[in-house]
Amino acid sequence: MNLNFCFIGAGNLATHLANALFSKGHHIIQVFSRTETSASTLAKLVNAEFTTNSAEIVNSADVYFIAIKDSAFSEVLPKINFGNKLVVHCSGSVSMNELKNYSSNFGVFYPLQTFSKQRSVDFKKIPVFIEANNRENEELLINVAAEISEQVTVLDSERRRTLHVAAVFACNFVNHFYRIAGDILKSKAIEFKVLRPLILETAMKVQSFEPTEVQTGPAVRFDENIINLHLAELSGMPEYQQLYDTISKSIFEQQKK
Amino acid sequence: MNLNFCFIGAGNLATHLANALFSKGHHIIQVFSRTETSASTLAKLVNAEFTTNSAEIVNSADVYFIAIKDSAFSEVLPKINFGNKLVVHCSGSVSMNELKNYSSNFGVFYPLQTFSKQRSVDFKKIPVFIEANNRENEELLINVAAEISEQVTVLDSERRRTLHVAAVFACNFVNHFYRIAGDILKSKAIEFKVLRPLILETAMKVQSFEPTEVQTGPAVRFDENIINLHLAELSGMPEYQQLYDTISKSIFEQQKK
Repeated sequence: MNLNFCFIGAGNLATHLANALFSKGHHIIQVFSRTETSASTLAKLVNAEFTTNSAEIVNSADVYFIAIKDSAFSEVLPKINFGNKLVVHCSGSVSMNELKNYSSNFGVFYPLQTFSKQRSVDFKKIPVFIEANNRENEELLINVAAEISEQVTVLDSERRRTLHVAAVFACNFVNHFYRIAGDILKSKAIEFKVLRPLILETAMKVQSFEPTEVQTGPAVRFDENIINLHLAELSGMPEYQQLYDTISKSIFEQQKK
Repeated sequence: MNLNFCFIGAGNLATHLANALFSKGHHIIQVFSRTETSASTLAKLVNAEFTTNSAEIVNSADVYFIAIKDSAFSEVLPKINFGNKLVVHCSGSVSMNELKNYSSNFGVFYPLQTFSKQRSVDFKKIPVFIEANNRENEELLINVAAEISEQVTVLDSERRRTLHVAAVFACNFVNHFYRIAGDILKSKAIEFKVLRPLILETAMKVQSFEPTEVQTGPAVRFDENIINLHLAELSGMPEYQQLYDTISKSIFEQQKK
């Protein structure tokens, strides 16, 4: 069954999701974004119309995907006439019920991944978490999700928020540590790229093991000599020194459990 | 030119390195470990003799690889007669000169990777950092390294220590955050495995981009609503709440630079 979708938002997530749905034969009938370049770029990609005017959003779509920043919901959504169609957002931490003023059919379609425009992703491998206001909408969203992903799960808003917090640690904070590592190297004119095989292997290990099974390094061995050498090494970077100390202790404490 | 190697230590690093050298036609003539199972397991793998008695270590090897815990150097090494042969350690943070009492030929052979016995690694992709007490030993180590790795670099002890600190952030601390993410999920009975595609993609992104180019999430957007929701979510896990707060601020501060 081919459906008609409208995308509110044309950022990284919207681009990858619209593209995945389009490639399965669904129609993206319209893309809305306040930024014309974003709207037109995505529209072209998925053979859709586009608009930057919320009053021009069509009310003939079967499902509206809200893929804008969480903080823009209250500004953008009240201006749109959804004609009581199914309205779903794609956010980790926004409760489903924040949509109930806009339609009597609403839900959540949350793909757990970090999307960048520069990289294509294999949607099949991305876990998608679904929530809906009734069984019928839930079923529809599960079916749509199952067309593009092999891992579809129903999850309520509270647990989805927990999932989002965990994802911030596993992705955003991890990426920040990649950055810190690069900063530390830069202080001695060593290029970030030397870390790439290590970074990849660290992520590969936990694809088949649990993180505790494969931890290595001075903290898990509680090698105080090395830890102290490293803390001294970071004396010119007090923020990183503090993080090194805190996280080494955290690793050691958890090891004892 | 096939060389004779002796391994002091039979842990993860020794196993992978001995294996890589063996596969290039070199002879591993002996493996020493204080743990008989480790010594015999590695010896069998690379067709070597083994011993658990440091007095029995042969003095006929061309190169001795010291692949034991940094903290065990001072206990193990004084007992060995290296016959003035080339002695190299494989540690990130131990200065090369810590070997000078044991032989007049010494150096460092540091592969930057996290090694687990459970996983095989492609040594070709592992950057190896070399240091030696003279040009001749340096050349020998570079040649040996270049047989098994595509990325061989000469690096002094001070910069190698910096590299090791960076690696702790990019690997051990990252892995700890995978663990924390898993802990957070466990509190709501969600399995760790849902994070695996996200973890892999986060590492894949920085294989071709710099971390700052691909950062996503609430902190980089400075989405205070979500950050506050997440901090509230972590109220029962004060250690993680504190980390969330600290690292979100660090991301935001660096973003402004």
